[in-house]
Amino acid sequence: MSSILDTFAFAKRIPATPSIGSTTVTKPDHIHLSFGFAAPDLFPIELLSQSAADAVTLYGRKALQYSGSGGPGKVLHWIQQRSLVHGIQADSNQILVTYGSTQGIDLATRILVDPGDHVWVESPSFFSALQAFRTAEAHITSFPIDGDGVRVDLIEEALLEAKRNNRPIPKLFYTMPTYHNPGGVTLSLERRKRLAHLAETYNFFILEDDAYSELNFTGDRYPALYTLIPQRVIYLNTFSKIIGPGLRLGWVIADSRVIEKMRLLNLGGSIGVFTQEILAELLQRLPFQEHIDRLIAHYRRQRDVLAAALRASFGDHVTFHLPEGGFYIWLTFRKDVNTSAFVQAAADLGVSFVDGKSFFVNPEGYHHARLCFSYVNEEQLVRGVQHMADAYFDYIGRTVS
Amino acid sequence: MSSILDTFAFAKRIPATPSIGSTTVTKPDHIHLSFGFAAPDLFPIELLSQSAADAVTLYGRKALQYSGSGGPGKVLHWIQQRSLVHGIQADSNQILVTYGSTQGIDLATRILVDPGDHVWVESPSFFSALQAFRTAEAHITSFPIDGDGVRVDLIEEALLEAKRNNRPIPKLFYTMPTYHNPGGVTLSLERRKRLAHLAETYNFFILEDDAYSELNFTGDRYPALYTLIPQRVIYLNTFSKIIGPGLRLGWVIADSRVIEKMRLLNLGGSIGVFTQEILAELLQRLPFQEHIDRLIAHYRRQRDVLAAALRASFGDHVTFHLPEGGFYIWLTFRKDVNTSAFVQAAADLGVSFVDGKSFFVNPEGYHHARLCFSYVNEEQLVRGVQHMADAYFDYIGRTVS
Repeated sequence: MSSILDTFAFAKRIPATPSIGSTTVTKPDHIHLSFGFAAPDLFPIELLSQSAADAVTLYGRKALQYSGSGGPGKVLHWIQQRSLVHGIQADSNQILVTYGSTQGIDLATRILVDPGDHVWVESPSFFSALQAFRTAEAHITSFPIDGDGVRVDLIEEALLEAKRNNRPIPKLFYTMPTYHNPGGVTLSLERRKRLAHLAETYNFFILEDDAYSELNFTGDRYPALYTLIPQRVIYLNTFSKIIGPGLRLGWVIADSRVIEKMRLLNLGGSIGVFTQEILAELLQRLPFQEHIDRLIAHYRRQRDVLAAALRASFGDHVTFHLPEGGFYIWLTFRKDVNTSAFVQAAADLGVSFVDGKSFFVNPEGYHHARLCFSYVNEEQLVRGVQHMADAYFDYIGRTVS
Repeated sequence: MSSILDTFAFAKRIPATPSIGSTTVTKPDHIHLSFGFAAPDLFPIELLSQSAADAVTLYGRKALQYSGSGGPGKVLHWIQQRSLVHGIQADSNQILVTYGSTQGIDLATRILVDPGDHVWVESPSFFSALQAFRTAEAHITSFPIDGDGVRVDLIEEALLEAKRNNRPIPKLFYTMPTYHNPGGVTLSLERRKRLAHLAETYNFFILEDDAYSELNFTGDRYPALYTLIPQRVIYLNTFSKIIGPGLRLGWVIADSRVIEKMRLLNLGGSIGVFTQEILAELLQRLPFQEHIDRLIAHYRRQRDVLAAALRASFGDHVTFHLPEGGFYIWLTFRKDVNTSAFVQAAADLGVSFVDGKSFFVNPEGYHHARLCFSYVNEEQLVRGVQHMADAYFDYIGRTVS
């Protein structure tokens, strides 16, 4: 059986391996600082249970058909209204509900990128996005971030250089400008404006991943890139961080012609109709701003606990930007540290984190690590950091003289 | 705004237009013989409502995370057990749950087909599959069906010819061997065996779409192609026809290396986790064989009503194969009839059907039409056929002397 299949050629564009390494977990009380998961205690379970039962009872016969009952329309309307709060105006033909924002990334890539086309990304960047670009056989170039987000000045230089030498302009620049995953940084207003200007001048699309923007710990708001240049931005958001990732529902906002192309790739199917019926009922019952305020208070506290634990356990061995929102703290170790070298040792002690290399296009970023403060509780945050520090200092003791 | 976007190049592989035409519907009591929808009265609404409420209450916190609680595992187990009833043995790493079988088609195409690769299909074929192959920039060749399914002898001739002239062998042959959509025919046992032999000899994959096989009106069963040559078949099935399409859940069964490649394209995301939690609860409560028997009895009666209505209204103006299962009757008119020429007139009278051309690779099949007997009730079946006949005879009177 295997001998026959071995002679068969898979499509060239399919990557050989998953984008992110995994460690072996043995302890039952293992602490997952690697998981970018929402805090389960904050899920609106009771309202959701009622919503689920009622959606089926009230709309079940239609809800189970291909196009559903009124649910998808109500979810679309909710997205429109909530977007307005953030200054984003979109007609209904400019919105597409997707299976999480990863499907949004995949669709944007597939409608825009032919093999060999250029995609530019941040360094570090979200691994699932990198995988989508690799699968599309894109030529990927990355630009570093600092405390104010991606270095737009370097992007501008590269564009000028490309134009001067008649080299290709990117089809797409993928960015997470607000509460970056994994970097935790936020793109400054000045850089946002400059980036929007560049997209217009050089005629490329910005793929703006705004998954974390509702989780704003400071009250400071930056305009979405979409509001600065709507015709050059494909905007992505998701219910994963504000309701729950298991729903697998997100959305895209873009020019109606972009949305129309994306719809074609869904082969005529509506997205998660049954889930949308339930979500529509939930959104009607859930006092959304109260819910978000509760999430923000909780995640801000968790961030502070993680930051304090890191300072206590690692001292000046790590630096990090204190994120103003989102889920992640991004650690920078000394240049000669390789976090992949102690990720399994940490797992053996009972904690997992994501080693830096997973977030980079090229073999680099080994001296970084991503910790997520959203999923585990405060006690686990502290204990997890201690385990990680134990693994780190043991590694340091063995490798650095 | 539009002038800027117009200068932007979408990926070449994206089709310009949707795969299936649509008519304008004006009447509130319009009869949709075009929709391949399940009968809404047969949805297990009460059980589903309880299942939804309980799944959230019992497993909500985990059910809303990326990987869910036990639901996906239970659904997988159910698929394994039910497959055994049909002679299909599969390990858990050979099964992938998908967003309906259309995602299965899309994933199979993307892992196998590079631009310019050859895909062979039946003529007629399912339009969403054709769209997936077009999007992958495949070179598509089609082979006619008759009352015993696709003409495997012509496929064999073409393979021989290709080999003799050193021309490309297909990467994929897409087929719906049982209760074909739209043809209503079933591939004979002899042809199944021959096709399996060809796949082995010439080393191509069969993409077996088995969406309708549970809806078996006669009790006669043919082995799935997968059981004849598992290492050369990617098998697709779906909950759409047996529970409800709104769930958007189907599955793929294939060699574990095929499944692994498909997983990579999902960019790490689990499929419809929350819906799977609910479905798992439902499958535990639903006496499945009783449920299927009820569906079969209903759809068989509907088929008979539609067939009788067609004979009464059209006489010898149409021929069709009486399907032994599934949802569809496929009409063949006289060669010079063009069903696209009266599809809007029929819609104006209050009935829609799908005109033949939507199911073909090339501009052909104009003298066919697909009618679906699953969705509307008996009275509507009869009245719909009368409207269609009125539109047809009016068209005939105007065009044929």
